[in-house]
Amino acid sequence: MDKELFDIAKTNAKKIHVTGKLHDIKVGMKEISLQNGESVTVYDTTGPYTETEFTADIKTGIPKIRKPWIDARLQKEGEIKTQLWYARHGIITPEMEYVAIRENQGATEGNLITPEMVREEIAAGRAIIPANCKHPEAEPMIIGSKFLVKINANIGNSALGSSIEEEVEKALWAIKWGADTVMDLSTGTSIHETREAILRNIPVPVGTVPMYQALEKVKGNVAKLSWEVYKETLIEQCEQGVDYFTIHAGILKKHVPLAVKRVTGIVSRGGSIMAKWMSIHNEENFLYTHFEEICELMKKYDIAFSLGDGLRPGSLADANDDAQFGELETLGELARIAWKHDVQVIIEGPGHVPMHKIKENMDKQIEWCQGAPFYTLGPLVSDIGAGYDHITSAIGAAMIAWYGTAMLCYVTTKEHLSLPNKDDVREGVVTYKLAAHAADIAKGHPGAAYRDLQMSRARYDFRWRDQFNLSLDPERAQRFHFEMIKDVGRDNEFCAMCGPNFCAMRITKSID
Amino acid sequence: MDKELFDIAKTNAKKIHVTGKLHDIKVGMKEISLQNGESVTVYDTTGPYTETEFTADIKTGIPKIRKPWIDARLQKEGEIKTQLWYARHGIITPEMEYVAIRENQGATEGNLITPEMVREEIAAGRAIIPANCKHPEAEPMIIGSKFLVKINANIGNSALGSSIEEEVEKALWAIKWGADTVMDLSTGTSIHETREAILRNIPVPVGTVPMYQALEKVKGNVAKLSWEVYKETLIEQCEQGVDYFTIHAGILKKHVPLAVKRVTGIVSRGGSIMAKWMSIHNEENFLYTHFEEICELMKKYDIAFSLGDGLRPGSLADANDDAQFGELETLGELARIAWKHDVQVIIEGPGHVPMHKIKENMDKQIEWCQGAPFYTLGPLVSDIGAGYDHITSAIGAAMIAWYGTAMLCYVTTKEHLSLPNKDDVREGVVTYKLAAHAADIAKGHPGAAYRDLQMSRARYDFRWRDQFNLSLDPERAQRFHFEMIKDVGRDNEFCAMCGPNFCAMRITKSID
Repeated sequence: MDKELFDIAKTNAKKIHVTGKLHDIKVGMKEISLQNGESVTVYDTTGPYTETEFTADIKTGIPKIRKPWIDARLQKEGEIKTQLWYARHGIITPEMEYVAIRENQGATEGNLITPEMVREEIAAGRAIIPANCKHPEAEPMIIGSKFLVKINANIGNSALGSSIEEEVEKALWAIKWGADTVMDLSTGTSIHETREAILRNIPVPVGTVPMYQALEKVKGNVAKLSWEVYKETLIEQCEQGVDYFTIHAGILKKHVPLAVKRVTGIVSRGGSIMAKWMSIHNEENFLYTHFEEICELMKKYDIAFSLGDGLRPGSLADANDDAQFGELETLGELARIAWKHDVQVIIEGPGHVPMHKIKENMDKQIEWCQGAPFYTLGPLVSDIGAGYDHITSAIGAAMIAWYGTAMLCYVTTKEHLSLPNKDDVREGVVTYKLAAHAADIAKGHPGAAYRDLQMSRARYDFRWRDQFNLSLDPERAQRFHFEMIKDVGRDNEFCAMCGPNFCAMRITKSID
Repeated sequence: MDKELFDIAKTNAKKIHVTGKLHDIKVGMKEISLQNGESVTVYDTTGPYTETEFTADIKTGIPKIRKPWIDARLQKEGEIKTQLWYARHGIITPEMEYVAIRENQGATEGNLITPEMVREEIAAGRAIIPANCKHPEAEPMIIGSKFLVKINANIGNSALGSSIEEEVEKALWAIKWGADTVMDLSTGTSIHETREAILRNIPVPVGTVPMYQALEKVKGNVAKLSWEVYKETLIEQCEQGVDYFTIHAGILKKHVPLAVKRVTGIVSRGGSIMAKWMSIHNEENFLYTHFEEICELMKKYDIAFSLGDGLRPGSLADANDDAQFGELETLGELARIAWKHDVQVIIEGPGHVPMHKIKENMDKQIEWCQGAPFYTLGPLVSDIGAGYDHITSAIGAAMIAWYGTAMLCYVTTKEHLSLPNKDDVREGVVTYKLAAHAADIAKGHPGAAYRDLQMSRARYDFRWRDQFNLSLDPERAQRFHFEMIKDVGRDNEFCAMCGPNFCAMRITKSID
């Protein structure tokens, strides 16, 4: 385990802890101290890795912070109940108070998020706390349109490469830069072991697409897939502690003809596998026909559904078509079934969508899925950005998050071309933090713009160290600046771009 | 002169020429040949550098393609008339037909741009062709909301570094990646010589901020600035061939108190200089009081105004405030004066603006400036993206361009930190081409989405070479892909991200 991964938190911020009022909890946050004596407290995804007394060991894993809460509840209720069940019964869990504290990012006034507000949103199905009882290592976090926009980073080896250690390191690297959840999309060998290592060492919720492992179990032969194999896989992953499952239960037989005639057909791996299976057997999607059984299973662990969009558009030409929206309607139907079982739900969304068609996605999703949190991949607003698709997609992501999407799945510079390396993961995560943060500001999330305000004041005061520390990537900002200004020892009283005689802010300050 | 700069055009496209029907003109475009026998014609900013028979020589400069057109008109009218004058007199100039052909990007059907449409938009003040009669080297291009969104790349040495050759190379590098205009923002020594080298060697319109050189002439002493020094500078630059001038005539005495109390004051160099001058002399902005004289001068060359936003917000906290909108109203007033003199006008805009406040900028600009083309810097949708501000700003840029902004000034990764190097210029230009292209699609510009459609078909057919060539940065796309797939010799029938067994598109194709 590479402890050095977390040096950033040591150089630009100190770890602080805010205690709960309803529960015996302490919530870790980052406090950035400024040169003018003020400070800015920000959300922190790094968990124990930034605690001074913590020593990482991939073999033992990280502390199980939720274990006492889960045990106490089990004692009381006699069985695992979901966060949705507690919310509906008017009970504020430690998880709910925890996320309320985190969401306020240290703000103490204004339109603050309260534990009761968290409970209400969860009860209404408009937010979830993904929290498998078998993954007590994860710090609680909330996904819902009234809260900070979250981002997910995908990791996972494909058949073409990368080891277990590399994948754990990639996951840690992603949360260092601010990933709120991690999806392990491993295929190929060592799926179980990779996932185990990630779950025991990562302080954020972990999602998977169980179909990938189910397909490995039948040696890649789609025809041999069955409900039995899938269910066995699901139980294996439930027991390991996966917090949310992408399940492609919404793609139905009737949708397949709509999809195969598209410009780019089906671009979701899970979607294409189910479409192929239905076509071979001429039967309805077994994830749809067994959906209530899946609900029964997932509620026993409090695992959340991420209802997969198997028919998301893979090109602008296919955006908002009958295949995509047909599936979305089915996802709304499935969400209502999940809620009946007290199972938490989020809905996955596109994909490739031109700017003028983005809002319709959000509007229809809210209507058909009754406000269940939306979780989108981008969307990419053009198809010709290969090599820059973190940007092509960040444009769409910022917009759709402003419109109400609760979580964004990052896209890296390597999208469509190759698998991301560490640099790509960092660039992708920071780009998505930016998109999410821009949306938080536009939505008016309490306190979101405070960091920007402090950054702007630091700019106007030429407090360079504060500018670096308030940036989403302090290391990069500092490196870029000092590549030019070699005079490291002192703060320069002018902007590096214009030179000392042409600094607009310096001139402004001299105006009487 | 580095001819190798333009290798890209040779590897992914061939130069073709489309001839005019009204005038004896030929318009260069890029034709990308596809592996399936089809081709895609795209807009080309590289001018003679991609002509096979052309040999670059920085001493002699590039051919003066507009010289015969200018000479013929001078013969006829006896003096230089502006494109606005011709448009208002119902005359379609060669420049107008040229841009109409370019705008269609080789499309031959659909809602095509016609020379008459170009004339109408120019006559109405809703579009301009920046074209100083002393800069016949520049290929005509049009800036207006009904046309392709254009991007500008800033270059220019500051007091802290870079040579004339480096600046010319930077400008060529910018147009290689698709910059539609270049602004030379040089300060410090050799301003005149740098500009001369750029103008004689660059096939796109060039803009400047004459105030920078005027201030150099009084050795940086703002108090000594005067209308006389400024006018002398203006004439010098008019004669050299600058196509559009950023002139900060809209910042008035009454605005200064509104600006100095802001979080980040004045962040425009020109704006801060004028504010300082007004404060020292307690007089009204001499660019405002001499505005009609400036119009008289500029119409003799057909130079366009880029009315500077000296009070653009430098932070989210200052966005859409009284200072910014106060100046914008004045810019509208000045636009009407310029039009009275048949001088073409564009209006500069922000800056730093949160997403939910972007549209108001566009709406007010259209209303107050009566549809004069808007030319914005970003806007950046957050202040904390240091090191990633090409992305922070591309989000706002794509949105405001969709709303109607005609030209986007690029922002590089080094914004707020340092001056861009060659890699930064490339990254910034391609990022802005993406933002502009996304807006073209959202606006429904004829043919804009055709390249995306061909890209998507190439993806679905696993035609990798076509995917690279249809990308905005073929070199990068290809490099990223082959870093992973070492099997360079053949097209791989699966997506590099998922490996051969998990390729959704391959599975889709196998569905009966």
